[in-house]
Amino acid sequence: MRSTAQNAELALLLEVASTPKPGNVDREHEYPDLRFEQFVAGAVGAADGLAIAGDGGPVGEAFERAIAGMSDQRGGNTQFGAVLLVTPLAAAAADGPLTPETARAVAEATTVEDAVGFYSAFDHVDVAVDDPPSEMEVPDVRRGSDAAAALREEGTTLYDVMVESAEIDGLAAEWTSGFPRTFETARKIEGREGPVTDRAAAVFLELLAEEVDTFVVTQHDVATAREVKRRAEAALDGEQSVHGLAEEFVDRGINPGTTADIVAGGVFIALERGLEL
Amino acid sequence: MRSTAQNAELALLLEVASTPKPGNVDREHEYPDLRFEQFVAGAVGAADGLAIAGDGGPVGEAFERAIAGMSDQRGGNTQFGAVLLVTPLAAAAADGPLTPETARAVAEATTVEDAVGFYSAFDHVDVAVDDPPSEMEVPDVRRGSDAAAALREEGTTLYDVMVESAEIDGLAAEWTSGFPRTFETARKIEGREGPVTDRAAAVFLELLAEEVDTFVVTQHDVATAREVKRRAEAALDGEQSVHGLAEEFVDRGINPGTTADIVAGGVFIALERGLEL
Repeated sequence: MRSTAQNAELALLLEVASTPKPGNVDREHEYPDLRFEQFVAGAVGAADGLAIAGDGGPVGEAFERAIAGMSDQRGGNTQFGAVLLVTPLAAAAADGPLTPETARAVAEATTVEDAVGFYSAFDHVDVAVDDPPSEMEVPDVRRGSDAAAALREEGTTLYDVMVESAEIDGLAAEWTSGFPRTFETARKIEGREGPVTDRAAAVFLELLAEEVDTFVVTQHDVATAREVKRRAEAALDGEQSVHGLAEEFVDRGINPGTTADIVAGGVFIALERGLEL
Repeated sequence: MRSTAQNAELALLLEVASTPKPGNVDREHEYPDLRFEQFVAGAVGAADGLAIAGDGGPVGEAFERAIAGMSDQRGGNTQFGAVLLVTPLAAAAADGPLTPETARAVAEATTVEDAVGFYSAFDHVDVAVDDPPSEMEVPDVRRGSDAAAALREEGTTLYDVMVESAEIDGLAAEWTSGFPRTFETARKIEGREGPVTDRAAAVFLELLAEEVDTFVVTQHDVATAREVKRRAEAALDGEQSVHGLAEEFVDRGINPGTTADIVAGGVFIALERGLEL
């Protein structure tokens, strides 16, 4: 019987094993400097941090530890977003049934020290982020652990940080609304049949056609993100080959990472609810 | 910094991610009832047992626990042999530098209770084994934990069990001779360049061309195992496409599992010695 932390690690591994997921690294697609094996090492390295969350420990400490471990490979940021989504879910599972309500309660209960842990995680790895809007009321995440004093002075919790980013970041939006797309992803995966990695790839495409991927907005721009959504719709409608789209997006360096993170979160929820492999 | 147990788990994952490995499950080849994702779950499930060995605990208990965890998926025997090879190596790494001498010392120092653990592991999963030769001096492994009384009465250690099988089983041969092919595999992987999974796949083919795979002997017969060796030589010489061989062996249900196990062991040694991904 796998532990909650092992299910979290397995979810990261199954997400990257799921193919095709247009634009993202998967078992049949990779970039020369961001490889499948680095995602595998990232997931294994994240295990100790995930175990802190799975044992009911502080979310911020769990997250920072997981990201430090994830970074012990040369690909850089492999699963920062996926870990950010899975950590509060693992913490919710530690205390009882994993539901939108318990997950929301974990997110809302995060503390200033959890925010410090979150910022400190940026010390371990380069994460693509936009310049914050000028009206942003929390420190720029790129300050990393140097932001600790400011966070403590203002009494900013990790939930506060997520609220500030919810409009522009798909993961922060999940954090502040009971993780609706993540739970919906779990339901969709549970409702399909066949290998879990095939189900996850199919659901990835549905999610991609449903909402603009905020990581593509950050890495490219809104126009590119809208094109990705439109092309995913075309692939769902059979007007475009999914494999062709996967090749093209990899060639263009377009990786819809937020959507992949939500798939990882959904796989984790499904595993916790008894999904068998 | 990954722990010894995490390197062991990562070695199992990298082995199955390495492609093409003619006849074996890898990230581009699988069987309908034995899938890539089941190997991934098997590796994650084995982690707790591997941690016992990596912390210097008893090899037999570590092995049984790892196999029980590995079996928490529906593909059956995914990595029994790889875990059997990696467990004593992880135990050797727990005490200091991992060398043929320290690994040999761990194997030779195994106890009757380690043998009981080894036999008990067969309770958790069906493993393809031949009928033992009539002159066999140790119990049939298929008796599982029922063999415990006989092992204790005869004072049979796990090393004794391996000595009995060394002539017909490639892993037992490693166990009783200081793991020469496994260490040689590590050297070969370290000596190559590029992604680790590409290196491991290339070394797999070399190993396959070098010695008859004893798992193919068990599953099929000596003639098939010799053909596999010959075909691997042809592929190495460029007279046969490796990808074609991979398709053909999967179609014929030929999986050179012992050779894959030795690759997993070699990757583990290389990771412990600092191989970076």
